[in-house]
Amino acid sequence: MRLDGRDRDQLRPVKITRNYIKHAEGSCLIEVGDTKVICTATLEDRVPPFMRGGGKGWITAEYSMLPRATESRNPRESSKGKVGGRTMEIQRLIGRALRSVVQLEAMGERTIWLDCDVIQADGGTRTAAITGAFVAMVDAMQKLVEAGTLKQLPLRDFLAATSVGIIDGEPMLDLNYKEDSTATVDMNIVMTGQGKFVELQGTGEEAPFTGEQLHELLDLAKKGIDGLIAAQKEALADVPLTFADDNENDQETVAEKSHV
Amino acid sequence: MRLDGRDRDQLRPVKITRNYIKHAEGSCLIEVGDTKVICTATLEDRVPPFMRGGGKGWITAEYSMLPRATESRNPRESSKGKVGGRTMEIQRLIGRALRSVVQLEAMGERTIWLDCDVIQADGGTRTAAITGAFVAMVDAMQKLVEAGTLKQLPLRDFLAATSVGIIDGEPMLDLNYKEDSTATVDMNIVMTGQGKFVELQGTGEEAPFTGEQLHELLDLAKKGIDGLIAAQKEALADVPLTFADDNENDQETVAEKSHV
Amino acid sequence: MRLDGRDRDQLRPVKITRNYIKHAEGSCLIEVGDTKVICTATLEDRVPPFMRGGGKGWITAEYSMLPRATESRNPRESSKGKVGGRTMEIQRLIGRALRSVVQLEAMGERTIWLDCDVIQADGGTRTAAITGAFVAMVDAMQKLVEAGTLKQLPLRDFLAATSVGIIDGEPMLDLNYKEDSTATVDMNIVMTGQGKFVELQGTGEEAPFTGEQLHELLDLAKKGIDGLIAAQKEALADVPLTFADDNENDQETVAEKSHV
Amino acid sequence: MRLDGRDRDQLRPVKITRNYIKHAEGSCLIEVGDTKVICTATLEDRVPPFMRGGGKGWITAEYSMLPRATESRNPRESSKGKVGGRTMEIQRLIGRALRSVVQLEAMGERTIWLDCDVIQADGGTRTAAITGAFVAMVDAMQKLVEAGTLKQLPLRDFLAATSVGIIDGEPMLDLNYKEDSTATVDMNIVMTGQGKFVELQGTGEEAPFTGEQLHELLDLAKKGIDGLIAAQKEALADVPLTFADDNENDQETVAEKSHV
Amino acid sequence: MRLDGRDRDQLRPVKITRNYIKHAEGSCLIEVGDTKVICTATLEDRVPPFMRGGGKGWITAEYSMLPRATESRNPRESSKGKVGGRTMEIQRLIGRALRSVVQLEAMGERTIWLDCDVIQADGGTRTAAITGAFVAMVDAMQKLVEAGTLKQLPLRDFLAATSVGIIDGEPMLDLNYKEDSTATVDMNIVMTGQGKFVELQGTGEEAPFTGEQLHELLDLAKKGIDGLIAAQKEALADVPLTFADDNENDQETVAEKSHV
Amino acid sequence: MRLDGRDRDQLRPVKITRNYIKHAEGSCLIEVGDTKVICTATLEDRVPPFMRGGGKGWITAEYSMLPRATESRNPRESSKGKVGGRTMEIQRLIGRALRSVVQLEAMGERTIWLDCDVIQADGGTRTAAITGAFVAMVDAMQKLVEAGTLKQLPLRDFLAATSVGIIDGEPMLDLNYKEDSTATVDMNIVMTGQGKFVELQGTGEEAPFTGEQLHELLDLAKKGIDGLIAAQKEALADVPLTFADDNENDQETVAEKSHV
Repeated sequence: MRLDGRDRDQLRPVKITRNYIKHAEGSCLIEVGDTKVICTATLEDRVPPFMRGGGKGWITAEYSMLPRATESRNPRESSKGKVGGRTMEIQRLIGRALRSVVQLEAMGERTIWLDCDVIQADGGTRTAAITGAFVAMVDAMQKLVEAGTLKQLPLRDFLAATSVGIIDGEPMLDLNYKEDSTATVDMNIVMTGQGKFVELQGTGEEAPFTGEQLHELLDLAKKGIDGLIAAQKEALADVPLTFADDNENDQETVAEKSHV
Repeated sequence: MRLDGRDRDQLRPVKITRNYIKHAEGSCLIEVGDTKVICTATLEDRVPPFMRGGGKGWITAEYSMLPRATESRNPRESSKGKVGGRTMEIQRLIGRALRSVVQLEAMGERTIWLDCDVIQADGGTRTAAITGAFVAMVDAMQKLVEAGTLKQLPLRDFLAATSVGIIDGEPMLDLNYKEDSTATVDMNIVMTGQGKFVELQGTGEEAPFTGEQLHELLDLAKKGIDGLIAAQKEALADVPLTFADDNENDQETVAEKSHV
Repeated sequence: MRLDGRDRDQLRPVKITRNYIKHAEGSCLIEVGDTKVICTATLEDRVPPFMRGGGKGWITAEYSMLPRATESRNPRESSKGKVGGRTMEIQRLIGRALRSVVQLEAMGERTIWLDCDVIQADGGTRTAAITGAFVAMVDAMQKLVEAGTLKQLPLRDFLAATSVGIIDGEPMLDLNYKEDSTATVDMNIVMTGQGKFVELQGTGEEAPFTGEQLHELLDLAKKGIDGLIAAQKEALADVPLTFADDNENDQETVAEKSHV
Repeated sequence: MRLDGRDRDQLRPVKITRNYIKHAEGSCLIEVGDTKVICTATLEDRVPPFMRGGGKGWITAEYSMLPRATESRNPRESSKGKVGGRTMEIQRLIGRALRSVVQLEAMGERTIWLDCDVIQADGGTRTAAITGAFVAMVDAMQKLVEAGTLKQLPLRDFLAATSVGIIDGEPMLDLNYKEDSTATVDMNIVMTGQGKFVELQGTGEEAPFTGEQLHELLDLAKKGIDGLIAAQKEALADVPLTFADDNENDQETVAEKSHV
Repeated sequence: MRLDGRDRDQLRPVKITRNYIKHAEGSCLIEVGDTKVICTATLEDRVPPFMRGGGKGWITAEYSMLPRATESRNPRESSKGKVGGRTMEIQRLIGRALRSVVQLEAMGERTIWLDCDVIQADGGTRTAAITGAFVAMVDAMQKLVEAGTLKQLPLRDFLAATSVGIIDGEPMLDLNYKEDSTATVDMNIVMTGQGKFVELQGTGEEAPFTGEQLHELLDLAKKGIDGLIAAQKEALADVPLTFADDNENDQETVAEKSHV
Repeated sequence: MRLDGRDRDQLRPVKITRNYIKHAEGSCLIEVGDTKVICTATLEDRVPPFMRGGGKGWITAEYSMLPRATESRNPRESSKGKVGGRTMEIQRLIGRALRSVVQLEAMGERTIWLDCDVIQADGGTRTAAITGAFVAMVDAMQKLVEAGTLKQLPLRDFLAATSVGIIDGEPMLDLNYKEDSTATVDMNIVMTGQGKFVELQGTGEEAPFTGEQLHELLDLAKKGIDGLIAAQKEALADVPLTFADDNENDQETVAEKSHV
């Protein structure tokens, strides 16, 4: 049994509080165990220079931690005058992950900025950020639909992320900070509502892992993602959430699609 | 009457939630109307280089806003690679203000870092930060007392801050963002529980002000500070809060002192 | 009596040498005791991005000290790669202070840059900078009038600044560096020729101060400002200096106005 | 068939020129098709501050591209004043990957710096860098053995990396730049000589992928890694290369181990 | 006799490998003894802001060393976040030197970027960079001629550079790193094919030098430049290299001109 | 005849005001025509890290221009966050030049910082800086002698610098800004009191120059340096200025040496 009494394949309690910040077009506080992340979505009526004139939209993300989100205080990146490698890696990951389920060509030349600010950290902050940012993004998109700017949500599927790892030779789901510190293999996985892989980042710096171990980890991750997407659906229950197919004329409701 | 129905001399609702962040030695969420600031206090067992060997402690502060704390999104200072002038001015102010009520010589060679992160902004963020940081600081100091490291809180008095301003010729207390935008005079005031001035920063860039107007503003500020300190006392009700006199042998209880 | 023999309410000797730098549209060397600041005013035919298209002008300031202006050498901010908090605070103050007496809407889309470079420091550098920058700014504006670009100086009043403080319980005017180091209260005050407050920045980090003490300090400041404005008037004696009223049709001469 | 005539499961020609830079303790030029990377290994007799006193060694990597390694010129990161997110991500990856096969505790408090400079880029630069850096690192370690500083190479296994991807629905091995640009799934894989996973980084931003597709990609990667390690063995033929077991007393020769 | 057996007036072996980097419009690897520099030339269809609208072209250079080009490892300037003084000085020198033989007015509003990256350093890297950059630049210009964009090469003359110095009182040509370290006078000289001076940078920090010594150094330099230009001519043998006179209508072939 | 009526071989008026800044150990204002530079010398009781433990001293220089020293305003390097290439080149030149006449081994582990701040620029600022910095440096060294820390000035000779150039084919001495802008050849020369070369930096970017022209320029420079050293001697008339020979036991007075 695990330190906090969970089974190997059990998520920590997940709680998503929508509309957490009044100014943002979309926002939530996502809590996964003691990990707490404020996610906001900001609409901007233009795209970055490298995309101008292409008629497509863009999704970009920034990630940060409050200095005392962690056990000991981390100096601010603004004070150090530069964004660290870990932060850059994470914000690139969040952006890529969310773009994978967005129909950029249906957004118009608009950017959605996703700001993920960790106010308390206990492992899995980047995956919680992705899961929460999806909810904030949907709310911002829905504002565009309600305003008549877009006819429907430019979305292809749900999206969530979790971490898995190997501790003392045992694969486990959703590691908290203490577990993460002792894991020999650490993997972050992003999946769609249909169970496809979007990102797979596994590291066996401490101990390389076999193909068999990889399988077990992927199975755990699938189970975790299912739980996280269920939480997203509950949080977004009042949003008339349908996914536009890429051929644009064959929509199914979320309920149908997500039960396939 | 004001936009939100308040009287000229009325504070917005104040709420202080202690122990908001689990890792920090002291922390709170302070809400003043729609302005929300997370304040954490971190203990560090050394002082900055310029103070080493002097036997005294140090209090320092950092201030930041989440990008979407404001109506439109502000780029992160970490992304810009430098801390802006406004931020520096505010964090210098917070540090100075809090040091004024701390007996640095009684702290030992220790630093307390106060991190004030605005998660939602509606005017008065720097004054809310000072008022909340005081509470987080007290909790961190109390940890040192409980651990037996210090015999008593190295504190001289309560401390809170508010803003006042002149709108359409009328002096007003505790401006929200809309009011602040139309004020011709803007003043931030930090006072002790005994009603002494610690900081006074008034700006009449739009319209210079007379000595008489200054008086009216100071009276309003005093009233606001009294309300804020009352909220601090309520939040800290369970802390045995006595102030060490500078001569070290003549302590009175808060209740006595603050009614003088 | 004070270290340098002055009375409590006495300014140090003030000397303003106009046209100190040949290339600048306006310039002076201001000496207040041993504090020496070169102030230059530069005209630029455009405003910063955030003001474009508004039809108004802008006043902005930069402040710096030569490395050996001070007793021990200070590393250059260019070598450190960033402008420090103290410098930013001061240059924001200088800009705000000067804008308060300028009719920005009468300037056209022009910027006046005020560069204040301290070549020797002995306390009160920021207030000397404001007092000197006013003179440099008037000369630059006068160039626009002489060229027929503006019909009259876009000015509302004189402007000067001084510092006051409390030393051993005694309020004093115009502190030099040694005095400043031992002051428990330190206040910088910017006032107009008509005696109105433009900026008031008081700090009692060492010892909070009472309302009564505040009064005494403000009275001393008023006296100092009067002396400084007299020095400005003498330096600018050959400039036909009249102030445009804000309603644009009711001008009085400096002499009249400043005796009210 | 592929653009350059290769089969789906075929590596580009691999060439490793050892001792390419005369000053370095280890170095090579690795060419994988038209991708060319100079890898150097530098020995340093200390470890970074966070590891001091722990008795262990450290492996760290830096990665860069010459401005004209690519089809259009990329501005230098030194001119931009900061290292970009992609670069940081890659150098963190290279370091982690190499550390996974090094017995840090057997190195003593020493650092090996691996500098990977891409002089010509045609896809797969980060994986070529890892494969080449391994060779440079072995030469630097061998210098320590020859000098008698270490008794044996502090190594656990071979290590190489390659990329795989899905193009038009077809999984392929070792993508060049043109192929990489049209791939919908892109995966970098680092494996040991024994066929264990060290790093797995797959991205399906363009099109999420299924578990089945993942399998096919992993099989291709295994085949590619085998070819790369064969090239390493050939290049290092004159180095008496045995791997220390972690229990320190049971060594096998490379030949034996790598055929398991 | 010298450390490496050369005479006082003898160059090290020079080798120029053209078209070393496939993507660049012009490129070479220049080797002068053990000093090796990759030079690439990039065409850009615009000029820097300060030259726009003037109808002229621009030549600019950047210079860098791989971290382990030198005996001990040098930290990357990108990691340090700024380009050092030595690098800036060298890249300014390279740009100035090459512009001196280019007819900027005949280039159209185009920039040629010259990137000089030292992969192995053994003294004389900046002069090797100039000599090699000339070759890369000619190839890039020739591409414009072949494309019909320019009618002829916008060139006035050949250009090469070498170093001379005084060691133990003896003037010597083309110092390698060991020699350079013990030289009391160090001079870099850039000359045209016609033997005119373009740049002359001599430093006698260790021991000031007389006019007579200066003469001897200049004679040695002339001899070295002749050898380097011969190597350039050989490398560029297949380029129909004629120099446009500034009056534009009186061209001679290289062969004629360079024998004057 | 020249724009300002001077002969081709005539310096502009030179004025050196010693002890210009009260806090510095040595200082002067040097005026060469309308070029005005404040030079200060600061003593520091340690050397930079790379020299520690070597028993020798160090001389280092920093150079800057006030933003409005020039005809149009130059942005501050502190605001831009980095020191530009021209500035770095100049401060490296000043440091090297002054070190050439200092007996570093006789200074003890001390640094002299030379700060050269141009308050008004009209050509030749770097050479004026060197000439003035020498005077400030002597005063700082003299303080060490007077304090008994050093037995004699650790100096080998006088040192001054000037510029020469070719305008319309005519070699000229000491160019002002207008002349400098039209010069085709521009050369800065640093010489000792004995007429030896310390630095020679000539650039013919506009028009390469011949050996004959070089001679004429060097002759002019010699004449200018003589005039500048005469001005230094006059300014330093009250300093008992003798030069220590390198063998330490054979001193001559300045008067004797400088007439050789």
